[in-house]
Amino acid sequence: MVNVGILGATGMVGQRFIQLLADHPEFEITALTASQRSAGKRYEDAATWHLDTGIPESVKDITVVDTDPAEVKDVEIVFSALPTDTAAVVEPKFAAAGMKVASNASAMRMEPDVPLVIPEVNPDHLELIETQQKNRGWDGFIVTNPNCSTIALTLTLKPLYDQFNIKRVYVSTMQAVSGAGYNGVPSMAIVDNLVPFIGGEEEKMESETLHLLGEYDGESVVPANFGLSASCNRVAVLDGHTEAVFIEMEDDFEVDEIKESLASFRGMPQKLNLHSAPEAPVVIREEDNRPQPRMDRNTGNGMAVSVGRIRKDEVFSKSLKYVLVGHNTIRGAAGASILNAELINEIM
Amino acid sequence: MVNVGILGATGMVGQRFIQLLADHPEFEITALTASQRSAGKRYEDAATWHLDTGIPESVKDITVVDTDPAEVKDVEIVFSALPTDTAAVVEPKFAAAGMKVASNASAMRMEPDVPLVIPEVNPDHLELIETQQKNRGWDGFIVTNPNCSTIALTLTLKPLYDQFNIKRVYVSTMQAVSGAGYNGVPSMAIVDNLVPFIGGEEEKMESETLHLLGEYDGESVVPANFGLSASCNRVAVLDGHTEAVFIEMEDDFEVDEIKESLASFRGMPQKLNLHSAPEAPVVIREEDNRPQPRMDRNTGNGMAVSVGRIRKDEVFSKSLKYVLVGHNTIRGAAGASILNAELINEIM
Amino acid sequence: MVNVGILGATGMVGQRFIQLLADHPEFEITALTASQRSAGKRYEDAATWHLDTGIPESVKDITVVDTDPAEVKDVEIVFSALPTDTAAVVEPKFAAAGMKVASNASAMRMEPDVPLVIPEVNPDHLELIETQQKNRGWDGFIVTNPNCSTIALTLTLKPLYDQFNIKRVYVSTMQAVSGAGYNGVPSMAIVDNLVPFIGGEEEKMESETLHLLGEYDGESVVPANFGLSASCNRVAVLDGHTEAVFIEMEDDFEVDEIKESLASFRGMPQKLNLHSAPEAPVVIREEDNRPQPRMDRNTGNGMAVSVGRIRKDEVFSKSLKYVLVGHNTIRGAAGASILNAELINEIM
Amino acid sequence: MVNVGILGATGMVGQRFIQLLADHPEFEITALTASQRSAGKRYEDAATWHLDTGIPESVKDITVVDTDPAEVKDVEIVFSALPTDTAAVVEPKFAAAGMKVASNASAMRMEPDVPLVIPEVNPDHLELIETQQKNRGWDGFIVTNPNCSTIALTLTLKPLYDQFNIKRVYVSTMQAVSGAGYNGVPSMAIVDNLVPFIGGEEEKMESETLHLLGEYDGESVVPANFGLSASCNRVAVLDGHTEAVFIEMEDDFEVDEIKESLASFRGMPQKLNLHSAPEAPVVIREEDNRPQPRMDRNTGNGMAVSVGRIRKDEVFSKSLKYVLVGHNTIRGAAGASILNAELINEIM
Repeated sequence: MVNVGILGATGMVGQRFIQLLADHPEFEITALTASQRSAGKRYEDAATWHLDTGIPESVKDITVVDTDPAEVKDVEIVFSALPTDTAAVVEPKFAAAGMKVASNASAMRMEPDVPLVIPEVNPDHLELIETQQKNRGWDGFIVTNPNCSTIALTLTLKPLYDQFNIKRVYVSTMQAVSGAGYNGVPSMAIVDNLVPFIGGEEEKMESETLHLLGEYDGESVVPANFGLSASCNRVAVLDGHTEAVFIEMEDDFEVDEIKESLASFRGMPQKLNLHSAPEAPVVIREEDNRPQPRMDRNTGNGMAVSVGRIRKDEVFSKSLKYVLVGHNTIRGAAGASILNAELINEIM
Repeated sequence: MVNVGILGATGMVGQRFIQLLADHPEFEITALTASQRSAGKRYEDAATWHLDTGIPESVKDITVVDTDPAEVKDVEIVFSALPTDTAAVVEPKFAAAGMKVASNASAMRMEPDVPLVIPEVNPDHLELIETQQKNRGWDGFIVTNPNCSTIALTLTLKPLYDQFNIKRVYVSTMQAVSGAGYNGVPSMAIVDNLVPFIGGEEEKMESETLHLLGEYDGESVVPANFGLSASCNRVAVLDGHTEAVFIEMEDDFEVDEIKESLASFRGMPQKLNLHSAPEAPVVIREEDNRPQPRMDRNTGNGMAVSVGRIRKDEVFSKSLKYVLVGHNTIRGAAGASILNAELINEIM
Repeated sequence: MVNVGILGATGMVGQRFIQLLADHPEFEITALTASQRSAGKRYEDAATWHLDTGIPESVKDITVVDTDPAEVKDVEIVFSALPTDTAAVVEPKFAAAGMKVASNASAMRMEPDVPLVIPEVNPDHLELIETQQKNRGWDGFIVTNPNCSTIALTLTLKPLYDQFNIKRVYVSTMQAVSGAGYNGVPSMAIVDNLVPFIGGEEEKMESETLHLLGEYDGESVVPANFGLSASCNRVAVLDGHTEAVFIEMEDDFEVDEIKESLASFRGMPQKLNLHSAPEAPVVIREEDNRPQPRMDRNTGNGMAVSVGRIRKDEVFSKSLKYVLVGHNTIRGAAGASILNAELINEIM
Repeated sequence: MVNVGILGATGMVGQRFIQLLADHPEFEITALTASQRSAGKRYEDAATWHLDTGIPESVKDITVVDTDPAEVKDVEIVFSALPTDTAAVVEPKFAAAGMKVASNASAMRMEPDVPLVIPEVNPDHLELIETQQKNRGWDGFIVTNPNCSTIALTLTLKPLYDQFNIKRVYVSTMQAVSGAGYNGVPSMAIVDNLVPFIGGEEEKMESETLHLLGEYDGESVVPANFGLSASCNRVAVLDGHTEAVFIEMEDDFEVDEIKESLASFRGMPQKLNLHSAPEAPVVIREEDNRPQPRMDRNTGNGMAVSVGRIRKDEVFSKSLKYVLVGHNTIRGAAGASILNAELINEIM
């Protein structure tokens, strides 16, 4: 068993890390960090638990420590659920202290020597780790996963990009409130309402997606060469981001080819049979009115993206429309970091 | 005062007609129709009233009659809130009987001799009425308004189309449950969920919008010559459709020109100062996170469309993004038919 | 394995029966019935599946038959999720045909020779079966479980009734929309709203509870001799009924005695270790703001009732207040019938 | 016109004060206070406006000042929407500075020389003002209104208490999220959920109600002599508290007498025709399933309480059940303070 720690363990994503790691066959949680006012408390006393599965017994009595590498002993991997600004300062310290940091924070994602990885999409970008360690003189390293909306989208774009050449993408999201953290969206803002704005989200989707589909040329990542424009909205859904996607391809296609491409897509996690890997990263729904977040977010234990309403655009040529649903705090956050760590643990 | 009737007066849109017409300065409700099982009852007994303003006193005692022109006496205008299939059969009978039918139903919208009109957008299409009466030998006529999502969108596209030449439009909607009628969306389908499908809605948006912006050449309407692709979703909002819009223009522009174009847009209803006309059909919101359906649906008594997040697309050139909110059962349904009737009453 | 059938298998409760029985160690689903328009179809084609766990593979291909004993062959137990009026006519036919009917319908609950049973509360009422068979000349029989709100409440009242003597109970419920069936509560009725009325529910709670806690004297059931008054409300929750309970006892008590009484409560299902029996039928929550339906409905796989806010009434002497949450379609419906059948299967 | 100020003008209740006072015929808003970080800003810049009616033009440019009597010049009445702990410190300073404080805060409500008043219920308690001014040496004074849930309940209890003698009351509330302030209830806590706890609420209902119905004996208030036990819950409703009420009377009654008593109830605000007074403080609904918060909260411009499901308790003798809905931030907060001020302005 590999000893792991969770940085920022009391928040929404921190709790998902705990839930997903509690019975993990390779990783054992031995350290939990939080802000100073929680340090020194038992985890059960420090956190207000918000998931409906209950706090795992195995973590209740772990003493929460300050988010400081000096406090985190004998740990090989740390999972980071830190807020961006804290992550920017703290994650490098953990890497410098020799730990492998699998981060869900956005702080380091676009650093040229930090891999931004979805294991099914661009596992080869992990080669940047070597550059990173050399550049920075670290024994450890930082690996990041993308933003929640980006992960779900990119998992569906990857096989299409490889097979049909994407020319442009428009995407409009309908994102769950959990993405903003437990206190992020007041009920007054979302009951009988929606909010058509999520700070920084569109920029992340527009840049991270192209980076993920970009090519690692031995030194750095050359972003993919198509355009993607996003409009991001918050709706009254607890978990599960839904995205309406419009794609113009370079090459023409039949809808069945698209379905076949998505349904047959497999990546390294499937080949290596990683613990958290879904059987198929993309699952096709044929019903008229699916995917729906409440019904489909837990597909593949929350690690698969459900795609439905796959149809030719009747208006624009070589164009495609579909709708996807992905679990934002599992596949889109904690589960993403864990899958990255599982891949690293397997191949490095 | 002009005597008016409401066809299908007990449903969701029928109730909006009643609410909006109860204190109308030109129109007086003298007839209400419904299905046979309601015929003969007092309106208050026939309808389960669902609006939070209460049933207007003036209609409580009106005896509901069958939806048959023979039952609707001394009425000049009828407003139709009928379901499509009934409308297809019944509206022509009312027109043949000499009545002016202002219809919210989709049945006759795309008939070549039936005007599909938004008074601010294409009032000249009303000239088709003459053709219609000649073709069909009717003393009355049918005028229709578009689908709820189309109206809100087209009101914002009209000034931009005139000034900047639109090349392509992508739109993803987040529509209120009232659009499906009172019993249309079960709570089990929408609490902690959304449904990414509304039957027929995308097709309507894609065809009606171009028709509305098309040119009447003296004989028929030549649709506008750009592409529009829609993806329609139902969300947990009671009233107010929200639409995320992406537009590629033929000509380049500054964001301020767009705002100026939208904010200064006025149509015939404003010039004629029609009773239901909002001061401005399009209202700009400058806040980061507006428009929102609960906050903005009632702008201009529900007859104005709120537009916000107007921004240049950072990815695609000559491209624009914005979000709009329009009240689907007022501007998008009953209010639309009433504004059509007010225009006709004024100019014909 | 015992062959079982499900009557009314396509509705909300029917689907729960299927979900709970799909991997059952003693029961094997071999028959599914529905209304005539579904008969002859594969189950997957006949039902619109609404649970987020997906249709079990094992039932997809079962051919749905008409709800008629002649169509249900080689089945020992049938679970009834029929609507009341159908149940009243059809359940006796299945019993007459020799089948054991475990019914969730209310039709036969208050018949003097039909056991109304919660296995933890009044298993001895099953002795009525003999009377029933004699009275009616049936080879089979009907056993019923109470209404969803009643079950959750009665499980908490049973140990208190035995230990402290209940004098009067007031209960106000906040019930989930699933209790009304998939199409039962329109979203227009419940978004930003609640409905303070559920037809027949208060009467059921007021009569069934006393019947369940009543004594079987060898011939019939003598209801318990205290008063219970209910007020029932529907709220915007998908699954899980919440009840605010006020109890006046005959005898005085300490809060800790109440907690001990509830927490240590065990019934025959626990003693017999029945498959669907929760470890403890009542689980105490000590947090200020629990139980909550979304967080606690799945306690004990949805078969345990969570009780919190247990406090002495500061106003009335010998009085107690608490809040409970129970899963209405599991413990309150399908799971209740299944537990009844498991008990019967074990002891008869 | 009387110059008035609003203390704590940027919060939820502060905004309601502004909305209700913007076009008031007797009061003119001339001062707005908030915390120090807002002081010095224009109100429009200081507040994030959350009501769907828009910020009144007349207040947009008022400069917000610190909540300090030295900053609030030439003002006769101040309305307090301050948080409890601030109110406890600050309100006395405004009274000492000669201002009349109409407070919605709970800080001073149970002080023996501070009137806790609902104008329809206990206007005579205002006589305490004289005692208060003598006791404390103030030129101004403080008058308070009760908690939101208490006001709605007490308006319905008053005529019944006078006519039938109340013996005991049980009440279970289903309260709107706006009662906790804009950020009070996270959406994660209330979508597909409810929270059966509101800190301090039950204690307030249990004490304030008896105080309001108590007798002023020339020196102090002797609380009414019956018992009231409350259980308070938060549900997914934006505005409008619903309460399920069970009452045992001393005297027997017919349901029609109860309805007549409630419907004919009028108080001093009605007699004096005060600006904010509803025509009738209690409105009876005869429908099976009313009142409902979304449909009925705005009755009487949000100042009337709607009561429905009035029925004899079939279980307990001389007992009654009903359900009420009152608007929590209008009748239950800002409107309550304003009505108090209107009464004082009229009679003192």
